[in-house]
Amino acid sequence: MILTVTPNPALDVTYQVDELQPGAEHRVRTVHARPGGKGVNVARVLTTLGVPCRATGLAGGAAGAQLRAGLRHLGVVEDFLDSAAETRRTLVVTGAGLSTSLWEPGPLLPAEQADRLIAAVSESLPDCQALVVSGSLPLGLPADVHARLAGAAVRLGVPVLVDADGAALRAAAAVPGIAIKPNASELERLTGSPVTDAASAVNALSRLPHLSADWIVTLGHAGIVAVTAKGAWAAALPEPVAGTATGAGDAAAAALARALAASNSTGEMDWPDALGDAVALGAAAVLRPVAGEVDLNGYAHWRPRVRTHALTVPEALDRSRRT
Amino acid sequence: MILTVTPNPALDVTYQVDELQPGAEHRVRTVHARPGGKGVNVARVLTTLGVPCRATGLAGGAAGAQLRAGLRHLGVVEDFLDSAAETRRTLVVTGAGLSTSLWEPGPLLPAEQADRLIAAVSESLPDCQALVVSGSLPLGLPADVHARLAGAAVRLGVPVLVDADGAALRAAAAVPGIAIKPNASELERLTGSPVTDAASAVNALSRLPHLSADWIVTLGHAGIVAVTAKGAWAAALPEPVAGTATGAGDAAAAALARALAASNSTGEMDWPDALGDAVALGAAAVLRPVAGEVDLNGYAHWRPRVRTHALTVPEALDRSRRT
Repeated sequence: MILTVTPNPALDVTYQVDELQPGAEHRVRTVHARPGGKGVNVARVLTTLGVPCRATGLAGGAAGAQLRAGLRHLGVVEDFLDSAAETRRTLVVTGAGLSTSLWEPGPLLPAEQADRLIAAVSESLPDCQALVVSGSLPLGLPADVHARLAGAAVRLGVPVLVDADGAALRAAAAVPGIAIKPNASELERLTGSPVTDAASAVNALSRLPHLSADWIVTLGHAGIVAVTAKGAWAAALPEPVAGTATGAGDAAAAALARALAASNSTGEMDWPDALGDAVALGAAAVLRPVAGEVDLNGYAHWRPRVRTHALTVPEALDRSRRT
Repeated sequence: MILTVTPNPALDVTYQVDELQPGAEHRVRTVHARPGGKGVNVARVLTTLGVPCRATGLAGGAAGAQLRAGLRHLGVVEDFLDSAAETRRTLVVTGAGLSTSLWEPGPLLPAEQADRLIAAVSESLPDCQALVVSGSLPLGLPADVHARLAGAAVRLGVPVLVDADGAALRAAAAVPGIAIKPNASELERLTGSPVTDAASAVNALSRLPHLSADWIVTLGHAGIVAVTAKGAWAAALPEPVAGTATGAGDAAAAALARALAASNSTGEMDWPDALGDAVALGAAAVLRPVAGEVDLNGYAHWRPRVRTHALTVPEALDRSRRT
C-alpha cells in the first residue's frame, strides 16, 4: 500500500458563469466540487491505476467532510485526521474563455497537529510500500513536517517521495535517502538559479549545499530530469501535449511512487523506466482538464514514445562514482 | 413563538481580495460564512429583538450543516429538515471598492420534499403565534408551497406573512386572510405596473384580480405602504438612511411578524404601529452591512421619527367599507 499525505488539502470548486464582470451579479450555471490537494491527486491517480493506496492528512469542517466524502465516492481509501478547522476551498470561476482563481487562505492550526499527523503516519508506515508527502502546510504548522515524515519512513526502510515548496522543500532536502520531486519554479526558488530545461535543472541542483536525496525535477513540456545516487537521466516526449498542465506533476509523482513501492519489494529502483512512466502519466493528466484525473488511453499512447537518456552530470553531483 | 420558514436558504460567503481581475489568480485575504436566506434573516432579527422564534426550512449537505451550526452559534433556535441535497452558497467577492456576486443555482429537490416541509410546519403550527414564509423555492418544488403553508396557518387561526416573488407570490396572493410583503420590484413583476412610491404601489395593487390578503409593500427610501382589510397607510422616514439596503425588507418582515404575533393574543392588529416599527427596523438593518443584522441604537433613534398617515385608496381596494 502506498500512503499519500496531504497536510493541507483543499476542496476544489469550479463555478461556470457566462462572463465574470467585477461589480456585477452573476448566476452560477454549474457548480462542481471535488477533493483537491497534491497528495490527494496522487492518491486519485494511483486508484485509477489500480495501485493499492490510502490518502491521509488533516481535514476538517464542512469542506473537510465534503472532501473526504468525495474521495470515498471516487473509490479512494482515506483516513484523514479531523483537524477541527475548516479546510480551505479553491474556487475557479470559468466563463467567456477566462479562468479566475480565488484561493482561500486555509485554516490556522495549532502546532501540535503536526505531531498528531506524524504519529498517525508513523503508525501506518510498517504497512506501507512507499510514502508520498505532498503540497503545502496549513498555517501554524512547523516547516519541517515533510522532513520529519520522510525521516520516519527512511528509518523503517520505506521509500519516500516529497513534493513541496519553500521552507518545507528546504527542510526535506536535508533528509538523506529520500526522493524529492520539485517542479522548475520550486527548484528555482530553492536554489536561486533559473530552471527551464534539463541542463539548467542539473546546474541548479549543483548549487545545493548537499545532495543526499534523489532529485526528480518536472519541467513541463521539457520532460523530467533525475539526478540520483544511481545515475542521472532525462526523459521527455518527442512533441508537446496540448491540454491543462494542472495535476501533471501529481500524476508524475504517482508514477514515481509506484516505482518506489515496487523497488521496496525488488530492492532495485529502475529509474529510466520510472521516469518514462512519469512523463507518460504526466501527459495523460494534461489530457484531462481536472487535476487528479488521467486519460489511460493517452497514457498507453505516450508510454512507448517517451525518450529517456542517461545524463553526464558534473562530478560534484555524481554520487554513483563516489560509492 | 414565531416560526420562520426558509425553503431555499443559503450559506452567504464573503471573500475579501485586493482587486478582482478576471483571468487572474487571487489570494483571498479573509473568508466569512454566515447563514442566509430571507426567513433566516427574519429569525436572526427576531432573535436580536428577544422575540421567541424558530427557523425551519430545507437544508442539506456541507453548506446546510454549516448554515445550521451558524444559526445555533448566533443563538437562533432552528429545526431545519435535512434535504439530503447540498444547500446553495452565495458568494460575494469584495475588493477595490467593488462587490461581485456569484449566486449558486441551489439544489434540485424531489417534489415530495414540499409535502415533508408542509407536514412538519403544520405539526408546529399549534405552538405558533405567527408564521413567516420567506424567499425562493429550491428547483423541483411546486410553486404553491408558500400558499399551502399559509393556508394551513389560516385554517388554525395563526397569522401568516408571506414574502415571495414570481409564481410563489402569485399563488400566495390567492390565499384569503394572510399578509403579503412584496418589495417594489416583486409587485411590479406580479402586476406589470411600475412601482416607485406609495401611490404607484396602490395603483399596482388595484390591478390584482382579487385582493383578499393584507398587502404591505416595502419601497426602499420611499418607506412602506399597506393596503389591508382594516384600512390603508403609508409610513416613511423624513430623510433617507445611508447604508446597505440588503436585508432591510427582512427586518421589516420581522417587525410585521412581531406585530402579527401580538395581534394573535390581543385580537387586534395595530397596523400604523406595525408599519412604523417595520420602517424603523428596516432603517436599523440598512445601518448594518450584513443582512440579518440590525443596529438597535439606530432602531431606537428612527422609531419615533417615522411618519405614518392613513391613505385614501380607490373604492375597489377599500375592503373596510365593504364589511
